[in-house]
Amino acid sequence: MKNNTMVYSFKNDYSEGAHPNILKAMMDTNGQQQDGYGEDDYSQEAVTILQDMLQNKNADIHLVSGGTQANLIVISSILRPYESVIAANTGHINVHETGAIEATGHKVNVVDSQDGKLTPEGIKEVLDAHTDEHMVKPRLVYISNSTEIGTIYKKNELQALQSFCKSHHLLLYLDGARLGSALCSEENDMSLAELSKLVDVFYIGGTKNGALLGEAIVILNDELKKNFRFHLKQRGALLAKGRVLGVLFAELFRDDLFFDLAKHANAMASKLSDTIKELGFHFLISSTTNQIFPIFPNEIIEQLNEKHAFYIWCQIDDKSSAIRLVTSWATKEEAVEGFINELKKIVLQK
Amino acid sequence: MKNNTMVYSFKNDYSEGAHPNILKAMMDTNGQQQDGYGEDDYSQEAVTILQDMLQNKNADIHLVSGGTQANLIVISSILRPYESVIAANTGHINVHETGAIEATGHKVNVVDSQDGKLTPEGIKEVLDAHTDEHMVKPRLVYISNSTEIGTIYKKNELQALQSFCKSHHLLLYLDGARLGSALCSEENDMSLAELSKLVDVFYIGGTKNGALLGEAIVILNDELKKNFRFHLKQRGALLAKGRVLGVLFAELFRDDLFFDLAKHANAMASKLSDTIKELGFHFLISSTTNQIFPIFPNEIIEQLNEKHAFYIWCQIDDKSSAIRLVTSWATKEEAVEGFINELKKIVLQK
Amino acid sequence: MKNNTMVYSFKNDYSEGAHPNILKAMMDTNGQQQDGYGEDDYSQEAVTILQDMLQNKNADIHLVSGGTQANLIVISSILRPYESVIAANTGHINVHETGAIEATGHKVNVVDSQDGKLTPEGIKEVLDAHTDEHMVKPRLVYISNSTEIGTIYKKNELQALQSFCKSHHLLLYLDGARLGSALCSEENDMSLAELSKLVDVFYIGGTKNGALLGEAIVILNDELKKNFRFHLKQRGALLAKGRVLGVLFAELFRDDLFFDLAKHANAMASKLSDTIKELGFHFLISSTTNQIFPIFPNEIIEQLNEKHAFYIWCQIDDKSSAIRLVTSWATKEEAVEGFINELKKIVLQK
Amino acid sequence: MKNNTMVYSFKNDYSEGAHPNILKAMMDTNGQQQDGYGEDDYSQEAVTILQDMLQNKNADIHLVSGGTQANLIVISSILRPYESVIAANTGHINVHETGAIEATGHKVNVVDSQDGKLTPEGIKEVLDAHTDEHMVKPRLVYISNSTEIGTIYKKNELQALQSFCKSHHLLLYLDGARLGSALCSEENDMSLAELSKLVDVFYIGGTKNGALLGEAIVILNDELKKNFRFHLKQRGALLAKGRVLGVLFAELFRDDLFFDLAKHANAMASKLSDTIKELGFHFLISSTTNQIFPIFPNEIIEQLNEKHAFYIWCQIDDKSSAIRLVTSWATKEEAVEGFINELKKIVLQK
Repeated sequence: MKNNTMVYSFKNDYSEGAHPNILKAMMDTNGQQQDGYGEDDYSQEAVTILQDMLQNKNADIHLVSGGTQANLIVISSILRPYESVIAANTGHINVHETGAIEATGHKVNVVDSQDGKLTPEGIKEVLDAHTDEHMVKPRLVYISNSTEIGTIYKKNELQALQSFCKSHHLLLYLDGARLGSALCSEENDMSLAELSKLVDVFYIGGTKNGALLGEAIVILNDELKKNFRFHLKQRGALLAKGRVLGVLFAELFRDDLFFDLAKHANAMASKLSDTIKELGFHFLISSTTNQIFPIFPNEIIEQLNEKHAFYIWCQIDDKSSAIRLVTSWATKEEAVEGFINELKKIVLQK
Repeated sequence: MKNNTMVYSFKNDYSEGAHPNILKAMMDTNGQQQDGYGEDDYSQEAVTILQDMLQNKNADIHLVSGGTQANLIVISSILRPYESVIAANTGHINVHETGAIEATGHKVNVVDSQDGKLTPEGIKEVLDAHTDEHMVKPRLVYISNSTEIGTIYKKNELQALQSFCKSHHLLLYLDGARLGSALCSEENDMSLAELSKLVDVFYIGGTKNGALLGEAIVILNDELKKNFRFHLKQRGALLAKGRVLGVLFAELFRDDLFFDLAKHANAMASKLSDTIKELGFHFLISSTTNQIFPIFPNEIIEQLNEKHAFYIWCQIDDKSSAIRLVTSWATKEEAVEGFINELKKIVLQK
Repeated sequence: MKNNTMVYSFKNDYSEGAHPNILKAMMDTNGQQQDGYGEDDYSQEAVTILQDMLQNKNADIHLVSGGTQANLIVISSILRPYESVIAANTGHINVHETGAIEATGHKVNVVDSQDGKLTPEGIKEVLDAHTDEHMVKPRLVYISNSTEIGTIYKKNELQALQSFCKSHHLLLYLDGARLGSALCSEENDMSLAELSKLVDVFYIGGTKNGALLGEAIVILNDELKKNFRFHLKQRGALLAKGRVLGVLFAELFRDDLFFDLAKHANAMASKLSDTIKELGFHFLISSTTNQIFPIFPNEIIEQLNEKHAFYIWCQIDDKSSAIRLVTSWATKEEAVEGFINELKKIVLQK
Repeated sequence: MKNNTMVYSFKNDYSEGAHPNILKAMMDTNGQQQDGYGEDDYSQEAVTILQDMLQNKNADIHLVSGGTQANLIVISSILRPYESVIAANTGHINVHETGAIEATGHKVNVVDSQDGKLTPEGIKEVLDAHTDEHMVKPRLVYISNSTEIGTIYKKNELQALQSFCKSHHLLLYLDGARLGSALCSEENDMSLAELSKLVDVFYIGGTKNGALLGEAIVILNDELKKNFRFHLKQRGALLAKGRVLGVLFAELFRDDLFFDLAKHANAMASKLSDTIKELGFHFLISSTTNQIFPIFPNEIIEQLNEKHAFYIWCQIDDKSSAIRLVTSWATKEEAVEGFINELKKIVLQK
């Protein structure tokens, strides 16, 4: 067993299976005969629930199995061969998808960012450097909310991006692998429906917020809707038993389960953060979502590692490093308390 | 409801969810913390079970979510940019995957086939027509077992293909979306382990034989193994909760469930075939697997359609057509009897 | 020397260099400083001359170096990722471009054709077989004029194709690698300007009609014009000294040189055909362009081969084969007479 | 006329046509019948001359029309789908080829470089950041000599790169668009033959050193040679009249014309540099090749621009900018003197 029972993992938000409601719904619907490839009743139900939540019956919604799949399909469906996508250096598509975007033929233009977010200024620098047919033509802006380092976009920041994009013939795509955590952050100031009015296309991450698998691609811009299922099929994203994604998302958005799960994840992260701050430690970056990046002396990290699994994010100096702690819908409060007690004990011993 | 309760569907073998054992295993393992992206204990267990069944600890096994995904990843992982794959005109990759192979940059060379199978002679015609650098270089042979029209390869046929491929610098890939049905056909004369020694790479279809989703890619040829996970990630096939595929396949191959399910599917198809033959009808092609293609007068088809869903496969003449009836692990014997009774009633009425 | 001085080649229409007028123009303009990448005065002049000849100042014209390059750029510039191009089985893009179209991600849908030409009926069969998102979506029709086997399209045939395409949401692209020969054929009944009104995009072949290299892509449909130079650059088709293509095409279309050269090529082919017919031989297909396909007994072919180079096109039966004889702007009348005399001598000897 | 007769252009090294010897050779060989697609006698002769100069009969040499074409074919021929190429931020493939490399499916990993050159340290940083299958696998290192900003690699620098690449499973590719100028620089300390022993593959630029078009790809590493002509054909790089490239390169390397032309270009650049330095101006970067980047006050640039064409490279501060002056084989000494006199006059007036 890689994660033996003595070690509790804060490595990521996909360490456990699915929320029990979802498994129950899968069992309840299991024997019903349904059409394949997403044309089943459950997928239709999930779409309707999401459209209602978005207050937008014209939103096109497609359920796929994972985030890299969602990203490569959405991006390649939009771009002409010579067009590129702009992303922050920390953007998931830039480093952590094994060149999935480039494999569909497109360049990722990178903007260096301290907080994982893009701004109109950063985008403008890319536009200014791409002036003629000897260079790619930037056409799409890729952002993540929450970002890969735990930060979130405020409503006015998204509005500024939308406005800039509209005036510069750019489209805006939001990767919502951890959208639940962003929207349930204490800093957040917009609803899912409001957010959906500020982008051309985005996806709602299920995998990292209680589903077994699954992300819901939401296309708002009419021009991006046409023949989207052809793209899905061509990239291997149409599951024969698409019903499983329908059941998952219908359950996740019935009675706000999605948001309840995200709130729990954030609360667990806050609980960790609060104590860590109280003990006098600093953070690589301030985060109000389910990923936090505290900085500890290396010897403390070693001791913590005995009973807890997590990633070392980066070295700060010779003596200390930032680690990443990720919480989720499944994180147990007693595990968080266990981590806190362990940390306190270590600090006291010194 | 697309499939109302009065209509029983023989449209495909993915109309229902998963076998109950699988759902139960998912619930039982749900709370265990595991590493992501297929590096979990359950995926490892599934691999071990499959390796044992193949009597080959060196087989590389990767679990992915669907057949088109498996095909496009395996094929693009093997071919150099100028190389092509040879397939029968009925081959799934030729028409029914929205150009997924071409989207990875490769041509599919087509061999016309009456029975859905390839032979050394058919392959040789393609080789003879591709002689220099002004044409693609065929490198891979794609076959399906069972084929898209229900036929299967006998051991000596696969041996002949393997031998031809080896002597002509070709690799052999077997699409096993319906491999269970093929191996459990009354005509079949080889085991899974024997089959695995006759190809370079193949996949075992879970989706169409009781799983919720999932196909197991099995790489036998050492030269094709290297860095395969990079391909998986790049094409969006590494699920964060890869555990779900591990649990599914471990369960499917524990205690031969996979074969039991396929046998049931075949038995249900045989029961349909036998009666249809007895009633004097002919078939488009002879099949001993879970897909059969009886030819009926159009008026009978219309009447059958009232209480049963199925696809009309092709027109035979002005008055009759071939339909496709597909059975599965979930096909109920009473539903088969219902179809038979209905057919008998219609015939008697005439 | 592969072609020793005793052997005259009828293998193709690119055996010699360029027409002397072109070389002279290159020398005359050599010292002038010009901007690069096709933004030189000579390229502009060539475009203007061609637009005048087409009676269409809105035609977008781009000069590239070769036919495969023209085909892959035009086709990939038009198609969305899931769209395909329809071609005759004899179409150059189908077999003789090493999968260049597939390498840009697109399937070629093939229509079997006896005379190298496409008809609305043939295209309709492809459309009828591609009905939903599980298959590619045909979007472009590729034809060659003259075809790869020497036949040409009459005006009414092109009109029928255009009409069919317009009513079926298809675009029409004409590969004019040998357009000069087609338009100067005795069967031809349309001008270059008339032809240009019947297609969405086409290219005028220079390489095979007197240029050193170069094809002129002509875009008529406004929707296909946007940002075309980005495609050219991305595929490596923008020559730094684009001036060379400008000088070539300006010279080729100044004073109708292009048509004069094609007429000569056709006349030489006719001269060969007429005698071959008189001597009682048949042809694989009737051609009035610069490629002819006479059928000879194999022993005659062997004897002809001693002093003449040509390709054996296909075997007819055990005793005879069709050969391909290609003439060009550079074919010497005395060489044609030499071939004729040789053939007569061989026939008389028998 | 974009370049009127009163303005002399230092914009680039491809403003004029070809060296007269080359045009003469084209005329002399024009009537000879030859096989197509690079299988002509002249291409063979060019290959032999180059192999002799490289002292390596096993070098595979392929002639193509341009630099972007050479880069995209070489790079895509080497990389597996998940592999990437490392380049300096100034590398031509990074920004100035419209995503040509990405269009073949591959990511370009960028190393920030002050002098346009790569070092083992810079490459190592990329390697250290790419550790598993969630990221691309760097496999090829791309360098330019001379670089895009006029600097060159010394022999020991290339040796260090070769050594690092060999020990890290990387291949080394040198873009020699301006290789002539690099090898004839006063700083250079290696011969063409010596350089060829330090890389796996490189190309010798003809276009920017006296040819009409054409670059010679030289493959040294045996593993990269196989089936290379398939790649050429598929990407549209096999010219039907490949003879033109053969004639060009045979002429260019007969009697060291290539080196004589590069020496002239460098001498003209030195003459400009020397005076500019004497007048007290600084340079953006020190260059001993045919591209120089002097920094002038903006008002001087405006005045120079009246009679001379050149690119403004970048802004230095509010009052001054760096310009790029490029010389070539065709640059006239009197034009250089004209520029110098103009500059002196402007400086004196102030």
